[in-house]
Amino acid sequence: MATMCVIQKIVRRTGWQFKHQIGHHRISGLGQSPYCIAAEAPALENKVNGRHRILTLQSMNPQGVKKPFDEVIKANIGDAHAMGQQPITFLRQVVALCTYPDLLDNPSFPQDAKRRAKRILESCGGQSLGSYSISQGVHCIREDVARYIEKRDGGVPADPNNIYLTCGASDGISSILKILVSGEDKSRTGVMIPIPQYPLYSAAISELNAIQVNYYLDEDNCWALNVNELRRAFLHAKQYCNPKVLCIINPGNPTGQVQNKRCIEDVIHFAWEEGLFLLADEVYQDNVYSESCQFHSFKKVLHDMGQEYFNNVELVSFHSTSKGYMGECGYRGGYMEVVNLHPDVTAQLVKLISVRLCSPVPGQAAMDVVVNPPQPGEESFEQFIREKEAILGNLAQKAKLTEELFNKVPGIKCNPLQGAMYAFPRIFLPEKAIEKAKEHQMAPDLFYCMKLLEETGICVVPGSGFGQNDGTYHFRMTILPPAEKLKILLQKVKDFHVQFLEEYA
Amino acid sequence: MATMCVIQKIVRRTGWQFKHQIGHHRISGLGQSPYCIAAEAPALENKVNGRHRILTLQSMNPQGVKKPFDEVIKANIGDAHAMGQQPITFLRQVVALCTYPDLLDNPSFPQDAKRRAKRILESCGGQSLGSYSISQGVHCIREDVARYIEKRDGGVPADPNNIYLTCGASDGISSILKILVSGEDKSRTGVMIPIPQYPLYSAAISELNAIQVNYYLDEDNCWALNVNELRRAFLHAKQYCNPKVLCIINPGNPTGQVQNKRCIEDVIHFAWEEGLFLLADEVYQDNVYSESCQFHSFKKVLHDMGQEYFNNVELVSFHSTSKGYMGECGYRGGYMEVVNLHPDVTAQLVKLISVRLCSPVPGQAAMDVVVNPPQPGEESFEQFIREKEAILGNLAQKAKLTEELFNKVPGIKCNPLQGAMYAFPRIFLPEKAIEKAKEHQMAPDLFYCMKLLEETGICVVPGSGFGQNDGTYHFRMTILPPAEKLKILLQKVKDFHVQFLEEYA
Repeated sequence: MATMCVIQKIVRRTGWQFKHQIGHHRISGLGQSPYCIAAEAPALENKVNGRHRILTLQSMNPQGVKKPFDEVIKANIGDAHAMGQQPITFLRQVVALCTYPDLLDNPSFPQDAKRRAKRILESCGGQSLGSYSISQGVHCIREDVARYIEKRDGGVPADPNNIYLTCGASDGISSILKILVSGEDKSRTGVMIPIPQYPLYSAAISELNAIQVNYYLDEDNCWALNVNELRRAFLHAKQYCNPKVLCIINPGNPTGQVQNKRCIEDVIHFAWEEGLFLLADEVYQDNVYSESCQFHSFKKVLHDMGQEYFNNVELVSFHSTSKGYMGECGYRGGYMEVVNLHPDVTAQLVKLISVRLCSPVPGQAAMDVVVNPPQPGEESFEQFIREKEAILGNLAQKAKLTEELFNKVPGIKCNPLQGAMYAFPRIFLPEKAIEKAKEHQMAPDLFYCMKLLEETGICVVPGSGFGQNDGTYHFRMTILPPAEKLKILLQKVKDFHVQFLEEYA
Repeated sequence: MATMCVIQKIVRRTGWQFKHQIGHHRISGLGQSPYCIAAEAPALENKVNGRHRILTLQSMNPQGVKKPFDEVIKANIGDAHAMGQQPITFLRQVVALCTYPDLLDNPSFPQDAKRRAKRILESCGGQSLGSYSISQGVHCIREDVARYIEKRDGGVPADPNNIYLTCGASDGISSILKILVSGEDKSRTGVMIPIPQYPLYSAAISELNAIQVNYYLDEDNCWALNVNELRRAFLHAKQYCNPKVLCIINPGNPTGQVQNKRCIEDVIHFAWEEGLFLLADEVYQDNVYSESCQFHSFKKVLHDMGQEYFNNVELVSFHSTSKGYMGECGYRGGYMEVVNLHPDVTAQLVKLISVRLCSPVPGQAAMDVVVNPPQPGEESFEQFIREKEAILGNLAQKAKLTEELFNKVPGIKCNPLQGAMYAFPRIFLPEKAIEKAKEHQMAPDLFYCMKLLEETGICVVPGSGFGQNDGTYHFRMTILPPAEKLKILLQKVKDFHVQFLEEYA
């Protein structure tokens, strides 16, 4: 069918090749991408809990034969609350107060939460979250975002007029790409993305009929971005397209590396030299675990490089409520900050977002709390810090644990998880397994992940969904399950892997 | 610039020709569409309230000369809460309980609200609104939507698997159009839309590079849809494109007509004959005011026409939390129900929405309350009905009032406002005014609306933003301002119009 074209292309380009079939079970008609698998998981659980007969990923197959696991562990998507992480109390208090302002009289809510809620409501039409905001987002929230950025970046000025509140970071990324990839030479526009990458990028590029230009992260060097590789990719791409945009994910997804300042300077210098538009996906800016690493924003580094750069390099940076310590994925809150955006591009952006009216206002309110948390001296400060540090401390421990355990398994090699919330270990697959996968018309790492799921109930995403060097195989696994469960999970992966190696030796 | 292409085309095709200039004031760089004007309005108010010096739409110009009005009345967008409408208590209680589940122990919240909140949370990953839902939407909410549709349609079965929760109705409409307009013959695909129409349609069609096929509603017959006009438009379009999709807005926006059953049958028969895919925008299904009118869903009528139709005509129907009596625009809640969707199209739809992860979960929860309100015997029932009926009764009165008052003005002719929340009166403009507008390179009704804004502070949208028969002029005005304010507004429009006619006589 003609109408299948766009999507098929997405699937083809991103390498999303999930099969519908797991053993004897269909994954209920969905499941052609890492996200499908991901998104599907809660439904599978619901089904396990009773109502539906079309059970799929469960411990019992339709013939009543017990599978070798008791539960499905979804380590495939960065969905913190679904893995049991509790919401930050203060964030939910503020949003609840905004939702139902009668609670402003309730003495059990802290004053600092009430102050924030009142301030947000005063900036909403009719003092209601139910009004459309202006398309760019509620003004006082954009002010708070700007102040947050200034503080984060040691005083580098940020302007609320350069902030756009978005429906998660994905929405901002897609919108900007849509504008940058347009016009007559649209189909010759090159967009440089890291490999491995978060597949939103490849999907968006494919949907826009632009050209994906891969630059490879250096696995042997902790997934570092090397500017020589950027240059190689750029020069090669110039032979067949017009590379205009350079996407960076820092901290990396799925790779978890945190870029150092020097690396960011190199990237910026390169973008300046070649007139590339920089997209900096910085949604994991709060998720840095390695003590030797620190998050540096592209904006701050750009500023520190001096006026020639700061006045000329076009940059958009993205953030989100979904990751960090808050993990509020369902709210679809996010923002982007634009730097040196050409007025024509700004005008287009404003028009594009206007057609969609506005991003969800409760998500905007959640974003506000993220950028304007309780301050020392405020009533909720201690609880907030306690909750935040517990979550981040926990993630840091699990990052360490995961790296250590994976590296003890023969045939698995895992770089340090410096940041973000995923391990992306390399798996060395025996030739026989690779042949077997080909027989099944599956990518070898997909074959591996499907086996893992079938035999252990652990759901991870094959590296082929993110891109990887030819002949290398990986999977992405979140470190979000609670520590005890994560240990069991890692032990199971280990046992599975050892057995897999034996089976295909 | 090449990158301006897409948007310029949108602007060109939709006739969005708002000027940035109002008198001596710039509308701060936004404002090229009805939505921009709309979206901008709250920001303008903020600016009026003090913080910014770049004041625009206000009663004082920069030279300190008082404008002839004290406040800007935004009658340009269906944004109920911004106009002072209060949220439905029960809806906000349920969403607040979901947001901050500690409140489930609070005795001041009614049990029926708690029951609903618990049920929603149990269907969310980790019992949190902060988890991603599956891309199609939280399962139990889709069940409630299906039950709501069954009840609305007198028992015609609805399947939760055919329901997709969306980020407002706009998101659903854009997604479906994106899938239907794809493949090799994409740029020859015709999409039939009513004129006048809600400009989301023309914008989406333009963005997709498809072909907009206009069918004209019959102004002399209360904006009725005449199937002969549909056929004319279809046959004419067949000469240069392949019309595949037929969009219907019922109750109409901006035109406010409510289609009778016979008319819907005719449309369905026509779609069946010509193999057209039907999109039924039914977001105003609760907004029917004329006693002689009743809302008939396309699904129900399709069912009643018998198996040949019900098994074959492809239909998608859209609903939203933003309109009706709830007016929860900021939540971006919505759903679509698909009927007879081809499995290939379903597969594509699922993949498309998977890339975006999920629609905002708080908006999904709000949608749940809309489709699953308090029932007789439940604690909140009476208050809910009281609030709902007050809002709808009020709108019905204002619909009547608006029609009557407009029709007393010489040179204004207004069809009955049978439903939705807008008046779309025809304005008869003197030749001299039309010439003057041309001098300013403005559409005549834009010129009129700008004058109205400059002189009275009343913000309405010119008919050229929605499309209209050549040589006719209109504007769209919401009936959402409170009754007292609406009366003042109507009187001001009347005085302005009389004076305008004199000035350009």
